[in-house]
Formats: sequence, structure tokens, C-alpha cells
Amino acid sequence: MGSFPNNVVGGRSAANNGGPSVVDKGVDFAQYFCTYSFLYHQKEMLSDRVRMDAYFNSIFQNKHHFNGRTVLDVGTGSGILAIWSAQAGARKVYAVEATKMAEHARLLVKANNLEGVVEVIEGSIEDITLPEKVDVIISEWMGYFLLRESMFDSVICARDRWLKPTGVMYPSHARMWIAPIRSALGDQKMSDYELSMEDWYGFMDDTKTYYGVDMSVLTKPFSEEQRKYYLKTSLWNNLHPNQVIGSAAIVKDIDCLTATVEDIVEVKASVSSSITVENTWLCGYGGWFDVHFRGRNEDPAQQEIELTTAPSMENSTHWGQQVFILHPPIRANEGDNLNVSFSMNRSKENHRLMEVEFGCEITQYSGKLLPSLRNKFFIE
Amino acid sequence: MGSFPNNVVGGRSAANNGGPSVVDKGVDFAQYFCTYSFLYHQKEMLSDRVRMDAYFNSIFQNKHHFNGRTVLDVGTGSGILAIWSAQAGARKVYAVEATKMAEHARLLVKANNLEGVVEVIEGSIEDITLPEKVDVIISEWMGYFLLRESMFDSVICARDRWLKPTGVMYPSHARMWIAPIRSALGDQKMSDYELSMEDWYGFMDDTKTYYGVDMSVLTKPFSEEQRKYYLKTSLWNNLHPNQVIGSAAIVKDIDCLTATVEDIVEVKASVSSSITVENTWLCGYGGWFDVHFRGRNEDPAQQEIELTTAPSMENSTHWGQQVFILHPPIRANEGDNLNVSFSMNRSKENHRLMEVEFGCEITQYSGKLLPSLRNKFFIE
Repeated sequence: MGSFPNNVVGGRSAANNGGPSVVDKGVDFAQYFCTYSFLYHQKEMLSDRVRMDAYFNSIFQNKHHFNGRTVLDVGTGSGILAIWSAQAGARKVYAVEATKMAEHARLLVKANNLEGVVEVIEGSIEDITLPEKVDVIISEWMGYFLLRESMFDSVICARDRWLKPTGVMYPSHARMWIAPIRSALGDQKMSDYELSMEDWYGFMDDTKTYYGVDMSVLTKPFSEEQRKYYLKTSLWNNLHPNQVIGSAAIVKDIDCLTATVEDIVEVKASVSSSITVENTWLCGYGGWFDVHFRGRNEDPAQQEIELTTAPSMENSTHWGQQVFILHPPIRANEGDNLNVSFSMNRSKENHRLMEVEFGCEITQYSGKLLPSLRNKFFIE
Repeated sequence: MGSFPNNVVGGRSAANNGGPSVVDKGVDFAQYFCTYSFLYHQKEMLSDRVRMDAYFNSIFQNKHHFNGRTVLDVGTGSGILAIWSAQAGARKVYAVEATKMAEHARLLVKANNLEGVVEVIEGSIEDITLPEKVDVIISEWMGYFLLRESMFDSVICARDRWLKPTGVMYPSHARMWIAPIRSALGDQKMSDYELSMEDWYGFMDDTKTYYGVDMSVLTKPFSEEQRKYYLKTSLWNNLHPNQVIGSAAIVKDIDCLTATVEDIVEVKASVSSSITVENTWLCGYGGWFDVHFRGRNEDPAQQEIELTTAPSMENSTHWGQQVFILHPPIRANEGDNLNVSFSMNRSKENHRLMEVEFGCEITQYSGKLLPSLRNKFFIE
């Protein structure tokens, strides 16, 4: 056999763990949590200045939410948010981390002389118990396109079990955005796909010629596998703002204080977007998110902070944007109108991955209605 | 958070599934089997001409082992070995495959008009039942450096349950080899490591300056993590024969007809190797394997076939060789003698991955004994 080392191919799929309803914790750990047990990966996140500035400012420009209060940090990782909360005057901070990273967090807390305030607890939030309810729940739970990783489930669980009725969520709100884009990625991926098929045909001939086995029956499944991989899987990309060719629309608006798992397990929206660029190409859709730190109505932030992962020249983040390719691209013009029906569900194979569907009706400025589009994608 | 898609970082580790003794099947599937459910990966293996020729010739140059006999193919994948066995005249072939690839194998068998002979069974060999014992067990079970993946365990299980007392194993023998090598990989990886540490120090300063948190306590664990990743993890490489600077030695010799799991769960050997190149550098060790198709004493092969993954200019395989880096390299000269104590065990975190230790005593041609070396590596 000789499978590639895990880090080459493993990610092309995730084993069936029974789907969202039944999550095998061991499988989930193998597929998901282990990533976060590497300091290298923590460092990548801690080096994201946009991310760091937003959380840093949300805490230190709103000390009144932390001063003398109790805080729960869900998925503390290296412990940075817990440490900031303590530095902002928290009386007690519970820093919960499911991976061995908890040991590093403990070291970091001690080295910054906060072991009297920050208590690092190794365990998953669903399993652990706190001695008291808290005034603030802070967490950096956002995955690609917000909901990949499904970590907000754990924040909801923490909120329902441990947040005081008067408590505040950090962040307090989150939104998912989509917009029509132009991009060369589609042509690239299409030629990658075509090359891999050429390769297949050569392989098929050789196998017949040298080894007497006719592989042609596998051409269709192989091409489907490759189509999914190259064309139907969303791509991480740092879009330039001028690649966005139409108005961006919100497909999900989450109040972190009240949202339930039912509210986020499926995302459905019908939105419209108008093309804002002369004589261009619609090559696909971009997807991103933003979150806000506003406190709660009865106990608002003094300084509202926004963390956005929208396309930007100076302020790109490690989240980038997710790109969903349309191939072939479609001619588009200023004033054309897109009616987009968007839906996102969790993958049956792995509840932390997503399946996305875009429907699109294009009405040209002239009034002409183009044949409608329907495309399915996977976020892996 | 925003973890990299599974296919970028996942492989840096494997979650703790309780170690060799307790293997969680779901975790094992998530980490291991899913790789083989991709036609893309099957194609990679089916395109390995050295691999294909060896199995093809072993079967068709030894038809007497197959003609009118019953065969079990363990981990049939696309079904190629089962199909060849049938084409060589087998009366019945049981083709067992744990992944969904079984469905493709079934299609391939039918398309090649062998559904009367080849029965594809989806399931793991440990779980399935056959209606009869078989004359031949054929399997391509070899991982990197032979034993990575620990798939031979399943072949042993199949043999003990389903092979007739007179049965034949394909392949019948397997050997692990090591040899002293020179390579530029060590310097490369060392500079990668050094760069990642420079990067860390810059990150540490920024985090202190901009975010008021002193990260220095994590420098040691970070450097250990990076050392493991860059310097202590064996590297896949296609070595040029002239990179082998000394005699190769066998560290394990397996008779597939009699070997037990106990025999392979740990590999231990003391071997000696003499440097055969003038004025060179010992940069590490190369590890590879070969297997042989010899039938059994009472029922030998008519044509013995060898499949070797040794360094080669024309006949390289997808297995390549595993390279274990010594850094800094050591001056070596023709006639220097290496006494190498080798040991390999399964990783506690994932029984399909390995931990390797090399001890080395170098006696120079002059008779001078150099300070002895001891190095630990991980095969991931």
C-alpha cells in the first residue's frame, strides 16, 4: 500500500462517524482537536493581527465588562484571551481547553503571574463543571466562513450552562456574508481537473496494454471524485476587494446571546445582489464573516469593536474568504441583478464540515432573464 | 479558530486512540482507511510499475499456484490482484476491502467479466467470514519502510483464520534494510527549523510589545515541537544509489507463512556497515524493504519474483525510501565501520505509525573510535 503520510492525503475526506446526530468523540478528536494541540498552529492564529487587535481592543476598551467579574474562555488554546481578561481586571477566569495545549496555557498563565486569577481546565466544555456561573463568556470559535468546525455549538452549550442571566458574550454577534466575485481560480482548477483526467486516460491505456485489465468502468467515478476535489470544494483565498463585482449580502445574522444549535445547524437565505462593475465575469461567490463585540442591551460595550474577514488590502486574516467556483464564468454587467438562494448544512460524514448550495437567477439590466443556476459545494 | 483544512495540518499528528492495545475502529478508519477510499490514491499505486510488474509476474509466471485454486486478497482496493488471480485461473477469489472502494472493485470485476470467480466482500478482514479456507493469500500490505500502517497484522489474522495448512502466501517473504547515506536534506531541514525559530522570536517580541503577553516560557516547547517536525520525523525520499555510502544491512527478515504479530510489533537488530566511499559525509540512514514471491518449500514458485524498493535510478517506487537525518553530518571515509543498533516500535498515539531509534558506534579505518550516537525518529 504505502499511503501518503497523513499530512498529504488524509484531508481529502473525513471518515463517516455517523453524522451530526452521533458524534464519536475519539473520531472527532482524531479529525479535529489534534490540529489545535500544535504550538505552530496556535502561533499562526496569534500572529493574525486583525484577529488579535479585535479581541485585544474589545477587552481593554471595555474593561467594565471584566473588572472584578468572572470570565469563561471556551477553547482557550494558548490562553491568550484568558490572560487578557485577567489583565483587564477579572476576579476569576476559567480557561477551558480540550487539547494538551492546556498544559502550555498553564505555563503561560504562570509565567505572566496570573495563576491566582486564571484557572486552566483541560477537558471539553460539554464535560467539565465550574464552581460558579460567570459574567462573561469569551471565545474565538469562528471557523472558515464562520461555521466550519461547528465550534459555536460548544459556546452555546457553555452559555446555557454557565452564563449568568445578566451575562455578556464576547463576541456578541456574528454574520455570514456572500458576494459575487471574479477570479482566475475557476480556470486554474478546471485545467487541473482536465489534466488529471488526461492522466487517467493514459493510465487506463497502460493498465489495459500492460496488465490486461480494462479500467474504463471507473472513469465516471474517478471523474466525479476529481470534480468534487477540484471544482466542488470551496477554496481558501485572500480576495482583493476589486474582485468583488457586486453588492455583498448577509445570509446569516447570529445573536450569540440567544442563538440555539437549531438556528445554526442549517443556514438558509434568499438574497439579491446587483453587479456593480462594467462588463465583467461572474466567476463564483465569495463567502466570509464578521463578528461584533457590543455587550448586551442592559450592559452595552463602551467601545463597539468589529472583527471582519471581508476582502481587504491591508487587513486580511488567516480566515481569508471561501471561494465557490462557477464554471464556466458568466458575462455580467453593471446593473445586472442576482437573486441568490443560499443554503448550508453540515456534512453527513463529518459534522464539522459543510455542504453548501447556491441557486442563482440572473436578470440582466436589459430585463432579460438568464437560465437559472444551481451549484453544490463542499467546505472541507 | 479557523483550523487549516484537514489536508494541510491534520497529518502533523494523530489523536491518541489508546495505543496499540486498544484500537478504536472509528478513529482508525478516520485516520487510516479513508485514504484508500479515493480512486486517485488507488491510481497512484496502480501506476507504480515496479509494484505492478512484481505482482503481475508473480501471478502469471506461477499460474500453478492459482489455476483451479481458491484465493483470498486482503485489502483488494480496486480489485487488481483479485482480477489477476482469476485471470490466472483461480476457481474462486475472495476480495476483501474495508473501504467503499469495494464498490468500485465490484464494478471493475464485472466489467472484466469475472463476477463468476471474484467475490468482493466489503468489511475488515478481522470481521468477515468466508465459506471455505483458501489455497493462496495475496495482499499488497507493505507500508513505508515495510511496517508503517501495520497492515501485516491483518494479513496474519487472515492467514491464521483462512489459509489451508498447505497454503501459499503472496508475497512469501519480506525484509527491512538500512544503510548509511549522504543527503542534503539534513541541511535543508535544519535551516527550515532555524527559520521557524527566528520567526518565533519575532512573534514573541511582537506579542510582548503589542499585546503585553510574555511568550518566552513557550520557546522550549515550541522548539521541541519544531525539532520533532523538521529533524526527528523521517522523510520520504527517492535516494540516488550513489547516495548510499556504505553496505546495506537487513534489520528484519519475515517469513509471511509463520510470522506472528509479536514478531513484528517490535523490530530490534544490531548490524554493522562499512563505508564504501572515499572522503564523504555520513548524513543519516536510509530505510527500505523488499518482498519475495517464493511460494512455500512444499509448493515452491516456478519463477521467484522480487519486489525491491531499494534506491534505484530506473526502478523507483511510490514507497521511495525513508530517510533518517543525522545533524550535523559526520566525516566518513572508506573502510570506516559502523555498528548500528536499530529498534522500531509502534507509536503509542497511533499504532499505524512508528518510533525508531538508531544507535551508532563508528570505528574509523585508523582504529579510532568516535563518540557514539543515539537518535530517535518518528515515522508519520
